[in-house]
Amino acid sequence: MKFSSKVETCGLSPVRKFYAYEVAAEAKGRKVRHLNIGQPDIETPEVFFDAIRNFEDKVVAYAPAPGTPSFLEAARNYYSRLGCALTCDDIMATFGGSEALQIVMSCLLDDGDEVLVPEPYYPNYDTFIRITGAKIRPIKTTAAEGYHYADRSRIEPLINEHTRAILITNPGNPTGVVLSDEEQRTMVDIAKEHDLFLISDEVYREIVYGGRKVSTMMAYEDASENIVVVDSVSKRFSATGCRVGALISRNRKLMEEASKLAQSRLCIATLEQAGAAAMYEKLTSAYYADVLSQYDQRKEAIVASLSKLPGVTFNSPEGAFYLMATLPVDDTEKLQYFLLEEFEDQGETVMFTPADGFYENPEDGRNKVRIAYVTNPADLTQAVEILGRGIEAYNARRA
Amino acid sequence: MKFSSKVETCGLSPVRKFYAYEVAAEAKGRKVRHLNIGQPDIETPEVFFDAIRNFEDKVVAYAPAPGTPSFLEAARNYYSRLGCALTCDDIMATFGGSEALQIVMSCLLDDGDEVLVPEPYYPNYDTFIRITGAKIRPIKTTAAEGYHYADRSRIEPLINEHTRAILITNPGNPTGVVLSDEEQRTMVDIAKEHDLFLISDEVYREIVYGGRKVSTMMAYEDASENIVVVDSVSKRFSATGCRVGALISRNRKLMEEASKLAQSRLCIATLEQAGAAAMYEKLTSAYYADVLSQYDQRKEAIVASLSKLPGVTFNSPEGAFYLMATLPVDDTEKLQYFLLEEFEDQGETVMFTPADGFYENPEDGRNKVRIAYVTNPADLTQAVEILGRGIEAYNARRA
Repeated sequence: MKFSSKVETCGLSPVRKFYAYEVAAEAKGRKVRHLNIGQPDIETPEVFFDAIRNFEDKVVAYAPAPGTPSFLEAARNYYSRLGCALTCDDIMATFGGSEALQIVMSCLLDDGDEVLVPEPYYPNYDTFIRITGAKIRPIKTTAAEGYHYADRSRIEPLINEHTRAILITNPGNPTGVVLSDEEQRTMVDIAKEHDLFLISDEVYREIVYGGRKVSTMMAYEDASENIVVVDSVSKRFSATGCRVGALISRNRKLMEEASKLAQSRLCIATLEQAGAAAMYEKLTSAYYADVLSQYDQRKEAIVASLSKLPGVTFNSPEGAFYLMATLPVDDTEKLQYFLLEEFEDQGETVMFTPADGFYENPEDGRNKVRIAYVTNPADLTQAVEILGRGIEAYNARRA
Repeated sequence: MKFSSKVETCGLSPVRKFYAYEVAAEAKGRKVRHLNIGQPDIETPEVFFDAIRNFEDKVVAYAPAPGTPSFLEAARNYYSRLGCALTCDDIMATFGGSEALQIVMSCLLDDGDEVLVPEPYYPNYDTFIRITGAKIRPIKTTAAEGYHYADRSRIEPLINEHTRAILITNPGNPTGVVLSDEEQRTMVDIAKEHDLFLISDEVYREIVYGGRKVSTMMAYEDASENIVVVDSVSKRFSATGCRVGALISRNRKLMEEASKLAQSRLCIATLEQAGAAAMYEKLTSAYYADVLSQYDQRKEAIVASLSKLPGVTFNSPEGAFYLMATLPVDDTEKLQYFLLEEFEDQGETVMFTPADGFYENPEDGRNKVRIAYVTNPADLTQAVEILGRGIEAYNARRA
């Protein structure tokens, strides 16, 4: 029996494909430390649980396809506090940021179309784009330039008659890059001038270090037709398993096309929207400041501990909770299998994300990893120390 | 800016597209009675809310991409009670039955491919299939034959080199058809002999009348490679806003391809899976019997009240909670707009689903509607009486 030619070209998630090996390692009694997955240990706010517990309807009924009025209003108010005037029609509740990305790609792309994406990129973008028959054209960036990409000479030569959109993650996953105001303006201008959609995945919006200001592309009202924002409560409120995201745009035609897909899957979960609305409505600026301060400490811890590993190079991240590091090994995927199947350090081992899946040409990421620093500083430091000993053992074994 | 050629051919959901008109009618003070949407008023079981309230983790973390172990195990045990031996690898948790359908279509279909679907069909199937570039080839059925479709002479002439799958809803939405054992065997044999997937949407499984037995295509182990079942807690447990479904197949290649898509969207909601698992584990056969008895009373009420409307014809449904009816009007969509915008009966009006969207050729459904009978018998009877007076007023206005 034949399968879709498109799904056959998709890969397994490099973040998730080691799951079975992790389960096997744990079955052997290993403690597995996680530098691989963006699952913060920060507690989900009590207001989320309260809203769910206090849900009063006796029937968990369908929500309206675009989202519950209370969730949409809460999200609108949140954007209003950021200085962006939106209507509820500009916002559609989605199953996490992931579904917002799936929907926008399905609305825009046909076979042979291209989307410009700064590389290294979040690997699931590749699946969302490939399944439509389109492909990523990477905007190549380098560690030496701090992975910054917002300049015309780098981007404009990549635009051709197949280009439909530019997709960015800001703050960046996996690189931790944060666009300056000037860089944001450049990206918006390029999209406008070339009649492209600028899809900005801003799920890490508040996590910006060094006093950088919280921003959103929705602020560029002169490019309302071009700009699409992908958002989610997952990282903002440490509620990754809640699966409430949003597709946001003032482009009416896009939102109408998106409605067809939203209606076809009926709605997203009713209770989760009640919880998400409560977080948007009830958490104050003190909450955001406290979370940022915790990630800042984690960033400091990961930077300090990684700096001690011989042969490891990386840039200190400007935002989000990831960084790209180059390791002194031949192949970081082989290193990961070794760490899960053969290595232990006093009964413990460690996971990261091999970076080959973050590049169009996997060779470009062969000796790189993405590190997620989402646990407390002491745990991060220990995980990095185990990584250091794992690298030594791996290289010793192969020498 | 260009949009996807595929999304442009999709339509708005005929079940959902009157939502704005409903809101407007309610804003004028109308009470709107619902015969349009499969939203039962049966209470969601308390065990669902208990499981959610008793969730003890402080962090609502990502679930594994294929589902939480406890949900998968609970679903496996449920199938075991139906007499089907499954492994947890045969089951993938999805955002409702809708996502299971999206995933399987994305895994199987390319541009130009065809899926055979008995007509009239659930209109969202059209979107799930069109967005891949494939299309529905309808297996035409008639009210005179009770909408039954499982015979070779009707189906085999439709199979060609583009056919990839047969997609059925059993028990049927919108027709209420339930396949006999012999008809199930026929469908399985056709799929096997022609090397097609048989995708069986069984979300109404337990709702079968007249002593018909609860069944699933997963029982046909001789066709393990061909059979895919779509399932959901939505209707079974009156939890439509919970959005926990499942994609079920013993075809390993299909489940591997589906994993790529499941991993790309990370997971479905963690708390909702805890609630769904509790319903599968804790509800006994008495629960299922009680729910069936309630729907049976509703079916009797809708059949009795519709029978009194002059010029209305329909078949008494064998399962699920819908029926197709032919109304004595020129155009049921125009009737629906009239009922929402102009008509009232002592401050009330009524919604149904115009059936044009259930047919490849909308003309075939022009004078038909789908009726969902999901509220209590007294309310259903009143809604049908209002419908009768609405039809009279509509025809009088146009005479």
